[in-house]
Amino acid sequence: MKASLIKIIFHRNIVLNNPLKRNALSLSMISSLREDILRDIESTDLRVIIISGEGPVFSSGHDLKELAFEKGEKHHREVFETCSEVMTLLPKLPVPVIAKVNGLATAAGCQLVASCDIAVASEESRFSTPGVNVGLFCSTPGVALGRSLPRKVAMEMLLTGEPMTAREALLHGLISRVVPEDKLEDETLRIARRICESSRPVVALGKATFYKQMEQDVSTAYRTASRVMVENLALQDGQEGIKAFVSKRKPAWSHS
Amino acid sequence: MKASLIKIIFHRNIVLNNPLKRNALSLSMISSLREDILRDIESTDLRVIIISGEGPVFSSGHDLKELAFEKGEKHHREVFETCSEVMTLLPKLPVPVIAKVNGLATAAGCQLVASCDIAVASEESRFSTPGVNVGLFCSTPGVALGRSLPRKVAMEMLLTGEPMTAREALLHGLISRVVPEDKLEDETLRIARRICESSRPVVALGKATFYKQMEQDVSTAYRTASRVMVENLALQDGQEGIKAFVSKRKPAWSHS
Amino acid sequence: MKASLIKIIFHRNIVLNNPLKRNALSLSMISSLREDILRDIESTDLRVIIISGEGPVFSSGHDLKELAFEKGEKHHREVFETCSEVMTLLPKLPVPVIAKVNGLATAAGCQLVASCDIAVASEESRFSTPGVNVGLFCSTPGVALGRSLPRKVAMEMLLTGEPMTAREALLHGLISRVVPEDKLEDETLRIARRICESSRPVVALGKATFYKQMEQDVSTAYRTASRVMVENLALQDGQEGIKAFVSKRKPAWSHS
Repeated sequence: MKASLIKIIFHRNIVLNNPLKRNALSLSMISSLREDILRDIESTDLRVIIISGEGPVFSSGHDLKELAFEKGEKHHREVFETCSEVMTLLPKLPVPVIAKVNGLATAAGCQLVASCDIAVASEESRFSTPGVNVGLFCSTPGVALGRSLPRKVAMEMLLTGEPMTAREALLHGLISRVVPEDKLEDETLRIARRICESSRPVVALGKATFYKQMEQDVSTAYRTASRVMVENLALQDGQEGIKAFVSKRKPAWSHS
Repeated sequence: MKASLIKIIFHRNIVLNNPLKRNALSLSMISSLREDILRDIESTDLRVIIISGEGPVFSSGHDLKELAFEKGEKHHREVFETCSEVMTLLPKLPVPVIAKVNGLATAAGCQLVASCDIAVASEESRFSTPGVNVGLFCSTPGVALGRSLPRKVAMEMLLTGEPMTAREALLHGLISRVVPEDKLEDETLRIARRICESSRPVVALGKATFYKQMEQDVSTAYRTASRVMVENLALQDGQEGIKAFVSKRKPAWSHS
Repeated sequence: MKASLIKIIFHRNIVLNNPLKRNALSLSMISSLREDILRDIESTDLRVIIISGEGPVFSSGHDLKELAFEKGEKHHREVFETCSEVMTLLPKLPVPVIAKVNGLATAAGCQLVASCDIAVASEESRFSTPGVNVGLFCSTPGVALGRSLPRKVAMEMLLTGEPMTAREALLHGLISRVVPEDKLEDETLRIARRICESSRPVVALGKATFYKQMEQDVSTAYRTASRVMVENLALQDGQEGIKAFVSKRKPAWSHS
């Protein structure tokens, strides 16, 4: 029945689920994350992805033991390239990705948070890039941090490895929302639900355009975005949305 | 008389004045805004422009009814191109533009705030980009938001359409100052007056250089700005300013 | 004795020391700053540089009297080019540079703070770019401010010349830490000590990579940073760090 479907949330929960290893992003964990993200990504029933971690650590980043024992440049290259691939994939997905953080997010785990579209964290969460302390500077996390935080704040994190509180992370722009721990689930679902109320192709076009124009100079960015506004209006759901608005009724999205 | 002129504020007030339509940026409103902005723009008596809105809404953005009924890609293109033209014009003007916001600024109205050089808002003001909710993602506003706010904060606004308070807008950099409503007029005029106390060609050169170098890499930016400092010193008002400073007297600007 | 060496802090204190002239960045002061910065810069005993100012003013920026009396475009060009050279040098140094600010930092003095990697300030510190008030717009400081602060906040500072408090500077990202005046020395040294506990070549590689990738688009940035992670692991101290981590012992850096 259509009516009951409206209340369903079309989101996918991806849970980093190796708490004994602090959800370390081993090569197998990263590969499985990539798989989970891409599965049925074109399905119109999928509208938003939520990434969270099981246990007190969201993710501790790369698996240093793996990097130590699986020797050889070839393996190391594979780890960092696969990880970078997943991080750059997130903004390219047709659905928004929300990081739901409850606990510690360090190194590539912190990078994963910074690479999502939206990040909601509990007040007790902490963020750090402590690679420098163990002789492996967080250079790949720095790509995401440097584009989320003021430079001096990012550099202090990267050079000292010291943790930042959730409040500080919000203040500086690393995350977009902080709530008490007991509200984290509700608040994340509320945002997910809001997104699910919108048209999937409209969201997909908007998200893709945002990241595209951000890499252009302002004039080119406006040319890109103006063209997209016209395209958006010509979409079936663009037409439906504006008609519904004018008629003061709820829009009935086709999502296609 | 010269002496009395010194106390006059050389500012232009542009008031978006269609409160019944929530100051929607219809094609005619945008065209008239462009005209108001450009009128006598080279006059040395004009030193600063203040944009405000009549009524409880600063501006609600594009006129969706117009977009719905004035069908045809050609019309839509004209609307978005004219709007983008006005937004990109603001940083190119030789005088600073201050947004004075008292109330709600949504979609292209929020973009207008983000596109000014300075933005002062009352505490009760709210900012949002709710296009996604009616099937028309705020892609052109995203150009301005993405260059004013941390990415995750901008994306959350664009993907959910939810409003941000004036305090949050200040925290994240969308606006530069928040005051109680009863101080809004005074504070805006105080800033305008400060700007009017400076030399018009010095302000014009400085503003143009700021936006130019921001689109360059750091080394090129420094070459551009260093050259401009030398040019600035060679200006009549550059010479006058430094002489006045050294002689501990008030400078007498030529403004030309 | 090795054991006692561990407690030594390998930092260089550079003190701007002309309080009677408010630590103005005269050509001779800038040249001496460049010399102090570059001295023995490749020594493995140097791990971090701290720049502070003697007296109540960190630095008041360019020496306007010098600019007024030492006439001629050639001299002016030399001043701004030398200053820009020092500012662009700071991110290129192999060791982190911390600004320790206690008091007023204006114009090129504010630019110097913005150009360091980390900036710690006392609560009473103030930041401004008042050049516009004396007819010399702070265009070169604008290069550093525009890359540290939200644009509207930077523009308001540059267009009005009004001061910003240390708390506001932290809120907006100009500095990375604020402490009460009586904690400034301790907090700065604590951060310096943290950095000295890490491997010098790892820090150098990480710092250089951060600024390099920040000028690239995201995909190129990730390619650059991934390659560097592999290189970092192959460094002697990269190997030592990861082995120490796995063996749960303190790393013994070679720093070479």
